[in-house]
Amino acid sequence: MTTRPDLDQIVQDIAGEMLRRPDRGEVARYIPELARVSPEQFGIAVIDADGAVSAAGDCDAPFSIQSVSKVFTLTLALGKVGDRLWKRVGREPSGSPFNSIVQLEREQGVPRNPFINAGAIAVTDVILSGHKPREALGEILRFMRFLADDDAISIDEAVAASEQRTGFRNAALANYMKSFGVIENPVEFTLGVYYHHCAIAMSCRQLAMAARFLAHSGVQPTTGRSVVTPERARRINAIMLTCGHYDGSGDFAYRVGLPGKSGVGGGIIAVAPGKASIAVWSPGLDAAGNSHLGRIALEMLVKRTGWSIFGA
Amino acid sequence: MTTRPDLDQIVQDIAGEMLRRPDRGEVARYIPELARVSPEQFGIAVIDADGAVSAAGDCDAPFSIQSVSKVFTLTLALGKVGDRLWKRVGREPSGSPFNSIVQLEREQGVPRNPFINAGAIAVTDVILSGHKPREALGEILRFMRFLADDDAISIDEAVAASEQRTGFRNAALANYMKSFGVIENPVEFTLGVYYHHCAIAMSCRQLAMAARFLAHSGVQPTTGRSVVTPERARRINAIMLTCGHYDGSGDFAYRVGLPGKSGVGGGIIAVAPGKASIAVWSPGLDAAGNSHLGRIALEMLVKRTGWSIFGA
Amino acid sequence: MTTRPDLDQIVQDIAGEMLRRPDRGEVARYIPELARVSPEQFGIAVIDADGAVSAAGDCDAPFSIQSVSKVFTLTLALGKVGDRLWKRVGREPSGSPFNSIVQLEREQGVPRNPFINAGAIAVTDVILSGHKPREALGEILRFMRFLADDDAISIDEAVAASEQRTGFRNAALANYMKSFGVIENPVEFTLGVYYHHCAIAMSCRQLAMAARFLAHSGVQPTTGRSVVTPERARRINAIMLTCGHYDGSGDFAYRVGLPGKSGVGGGIIAVAPGKASIAVWSPGLDAAGNSHLGRIALEMLVKRTGWSIFGA
Amino acid sequence: MTTRPDLDQIVQDIAGEMLRRPDRGEVARYIPELARVSPEQFGIAVIDADGAVSAAGDCDAPFSIQSVSKVFTLTLALGKVGDRLWKRVGREPSGSPFNSIVQLEREQGVPRNPFINAGAIAVTDVILSGHKPREALGEILRFMRFLADDDAISIDEAVAASEQRTGFRNAALANYMKSFGVIENPVEFTLGVYYHHCAIAMSCRQLAMAARFLAHSGVQPTTGRSVVTPERARRINAIMLTCGHYDGSGDFAYRVGLPGKSGVGGGIIAVAPGKASIAVWSPGLDAAGNSHLGRIALEMLVKRTGWSIFGA
Repeated sequence: MTTRPDLDQIVQDIAGEMLRRPDRGEVARYIPELARVSPEQFGIAVIDADGAVSAAGDCDAPFSIQSVSKVFTLTLALGKVGDRLWKRVGREPSGSPFNSIVQLEREQGVPRNPFINAGAIAVTDVILSGHKPREALGEILRFMRFLADDDAISIDEAVAASEQRTGFRNAALANYMKSFGVIENPVEFTLGVYYHHCAIAMSCRQLAMAARFLAHSGVQPTTGRSVVTPERARRINAIMLTCGHYDGSGDFAYRVGLPGKSGVGGGIIAVAPGKASIAVWSPGLDAAGNSHLGRIALEMLVKRTGWSIFGA
Repeated sequence: MTTRPDLDQIVQDIAGEMLRRPDRGEVARYIPELARVSPEQFGIAVIDADGAVSAAGDCDAPFSIQSVSKVFTLTLALGKVGDRLWKRVGREPSGSPFNSIVQLEREQGVPRNPFINAGAIAVTDVILSGHKPREALGEILRFMRFLADDDAISIDEAVAASEQRTGFRNAALANYMKSFGVIENPVEFTLGVYYHHCAIAMSCRQLAMAARFLAHSGVQPTTGRSVVTPERARRINAIMLTCGHYDGSGDFAYRVGLPGKSGVGGGIIAVAPGKASIAVWSPGLDAAGNSHLGRIALEMLVKRTGWSIFGA
Repeated sequence: MTTRPDLDQIVQDIAGEMLRRPDRGEVARYIPELARVSPEQFGIAVIDADGAVSAAGDCDAPFSIQSVSKVFTLTLALGKVGDRLWKRVGREPSGSPFNSIVQLEREQGVPRNPFINAGAIAVTDVILSGHKPREALGEILRFMRFLADDDAISIDEAVAASEQRTGFRNAALANYMKSFGVIENPVEFTLGVYYHHCAIAMSCRQLAMAARFLAHSGVQPTTGRSVVTPERARRINAIMLTCGHYDGSGDFAYRVGLPGKSGVGGGIIAVAPGKASIAVWSPGLDAAGNSHLGRIALEMLVKRTGWSIFGA
Repeated sequence: MTTRPDLDQIVQDIAGEMLRRPDRGEVARYIPELARVSPEQFGIAVIDADGAVSAAGDCDAPFSIQSVSKVFTLTLALGKVGDRLWKRVGREPSGSPFNSIVQLEREQGVPRNPFINAGAIAVTDVILSGHKPREALGEILRFMRFLADDDAISIDEAVAASEQRTGFRNAALANYMKSFGVIENPVEFTLGVYYHHCAIAMSCRQLAMAARFLAHSGVQPTTGRSVVTPERARRINAIMLTCGHYDGSGDFAYRVGLPGKSGVGGGIIAVAPGKASIAVWSPGLDAAGNSHLGRIALEMLVKRTGWSIFGA
């Protein structure tokens, strides 16, 4: 496919164009910590099968990873309970906005997939069971540091506190699931852990590092350490493709053609199986809540590299 | 990857196992023509990039392709109106059963994607516009014969007549869309064409032939004829992956990991980009309305070939 | 309560005020025949227990009774099949707009009550069964003429034809119910009878005459002829109160406090049990599709007469 | 209508028959305090315009009034904020079960009426605003004691605690409304007051006393004290009629024909305007969650007294 110098050039080109574009989407405004972030920023990092990093723009600026964290909590929960997880959460696209409660009423409190809010809360609850909130959160944070090979990764406590103070919709989702027995722990504990892992701050470089195992059959290239089985890596990728961008997942697959997961902080991770792990970030969002420039950048990257999983 | 003798063997193995399995799903019973088909049958055909065919079981038995036809009508409609099609139909997973009308009420009569019934009816309406029903149907049939390189392909008129006689739910969907202006032609004309293209009878071998262009960047291997652009082939594959199996699309992606489209007649086509086009058939369906053994056969095929688009 | 001269005066006062008011609502525009009607018109007729008529304004102008007809088709259908009717239609408020199809999907094709469109179509189907459409329509028309004691009442064929030409939403509802077996006759026959009885043209005076039996325990005062049992009259009144004004039924009960039924032509009939039958008409509608001035006129009438069923 | 001796006899007859009947419905089981109550009990109390009480069966046994309390909190909230209340809650039947959250999503967090759970929680929040929970609860309790003229009325703390411990669905509703700004106070405070007023324990005699003002134009007969204006009394009655029995309100109007409000503890109050206030109690519920024998008893009472508001 592409040789290294090409990929560096592509990444530089994309960052240059993204930093210049006038259309930047709308920054999330529901908490002040996110509303304050400048939409002028754009970062990108791509790590290939040899571990070589191509990065550009604000690739080292930490941002709130928000829902991107859900890929990693899903991985942890599958590691903890295996396929029993699928009794607590489905794996079908929702056909609804990320915070819809309607689907829960229709389906007995079982969320449709691990990437809508309700599903991610249920996944967090699985990780929490048998632990204190502090322990569960520590486990998640250690996992992120291990994957990214960077012990400096931390939680933005101000973001977590803000989310907790205003997160009535998530409290509704959690209580609703609790009424069906889908949540086992006290709602405030589960939500506490959830808000904190969403408030982890990471850079594009760190996220692309963390996502490497998904691009390489569950194994971290260079170190050779196995994180999950090849089959599990494929399956997590499949769920990212069908459910990773809320009610814009079909459009993302159509335009970009890579498994990916977005967060309301403007970050997106994407996976080109066998080729590279990718993270992009730009705080402005489109109507579906996904990074506006992040999606466009990924579309350009795939066009120039031919990495679409749907054909050359 | 795999060499030819291996693929032949794999296909033989799968057919052998599928013909023996006791669990066969439930044959569709809503019209007598489908209810009569024996669930004991199983066929498979795989065509690789060189045009070599590996086929086994009831691979030459014709069956009612039903919703599998929707991939080809989508291709035709995109050829006719291009991206203007997306004003009439979305491309997001529905999160609902194939014949749900609820989503239409919520979204002003615009169906969520081209593969649920409402969306496929809207696509048929696009093909019909400017033509008489007979002409539109002729165009669809000629396209199928061209793609499969087989002029013997025909419509099972008894199936079409039966569907038309009992298709009140589809008539509801079509009239509902018509009330929002999403359907342009007289409802009975659009439905007439729709029922007839769903009633096309084809074998696994013929379907795998017809799907070749999707596996090979829009080009038919061996002849080198271009059917669609590479980008359009990728995009159709993306829609198949996110929406191809109704409310079981997420599960199909999770288990099989290939773009595909199923029909209530028990057929499924699947696409391994760059590698092969595939058709399987077994009339017994699972709870989501997809071929029970067809899905299991594809899961086995992908496991043995490593063709998952989500990684090795 | 009120003596005759008082009631005459009240009715005159109301008509005078209603004809002068500047706020007149919006005339229905979905067919040209209704869109053409002048919103300047207002009529009222009140018939007391002695058969004395107080009428004012455009009380003799015929208008399209539309959904007001549903009270009388319900009466006919109950006369034909009795309580077996309730297997085909419910009697709960719908909590949805008059033409919603969502509820039908949730409840297996059984409409919530006889006064939403789907329910009235199901009721029409009951009347039609065993008859030709022409016969069923003749029976409905004869019943209206008998109740109003006026053989001049007729159907506005232009309205019926217009409704039929554009009634795709109703065709969707009917086909949807047919798919569940709730509709027995060919959909086009049932809809034909439905559109025609909705297109009956009557004046306020005629409608108030027709509604007398509901105000007087099932018996027409003056003639003493029994139309239904006292219990059935009460029950029809109960359904009018809970379901008579689509998704504005609660508000109508709250403001007016009488059983009533409105139509999109701007007519409303209301019943003060033991006291009077009432018809008002003004073509301008409010947001819920009920006559704007008609509702206000009834509110004034109840205030001045003390006829609310909910207390003095 | 009826003379006193007749009414006494009717009430005795009904109690006798109800105590003997084999069909008793199903006692609510979601908290142990309600599950323990014997379904063998039946009580009835009727208070006429002169203040004479006809009572029979377990008419003095206290029971958990549950949702019957919602009539009285609605009265208090209207007294506090008047028609501004209708910005926080609607007054249309819901067309859904009592604890549905779907409607809230469709209508921006505004509950459909004050008698479904979400609406009653919003009403409680209005009463709470500007007060401490203890004060608000004290006000509600004093109001009940005043209306029933009985200072012995109290709250069953075990019931309140049990509800609070298991009330995740209500917590979901409250948090959901809070996310739309419909709830002003801390969710746990509002729910605390809500659970406690639902846990008030009263007998049929006490409830019939408390409901007198609704039957008599807002005035307590015998004392002549005005509780609300006549218009407000009528309007509360109207809301009881259209919304008082969850998704069984239409059926209650159809069968009984009186404004009423039921509770899951098996109590129902009903109002015959100008004639009597009524309370019945039997713990076994029907499928819609209303007292099975309570509804049948009211049907008998109305048949023998001719008190239906829908005609003689």
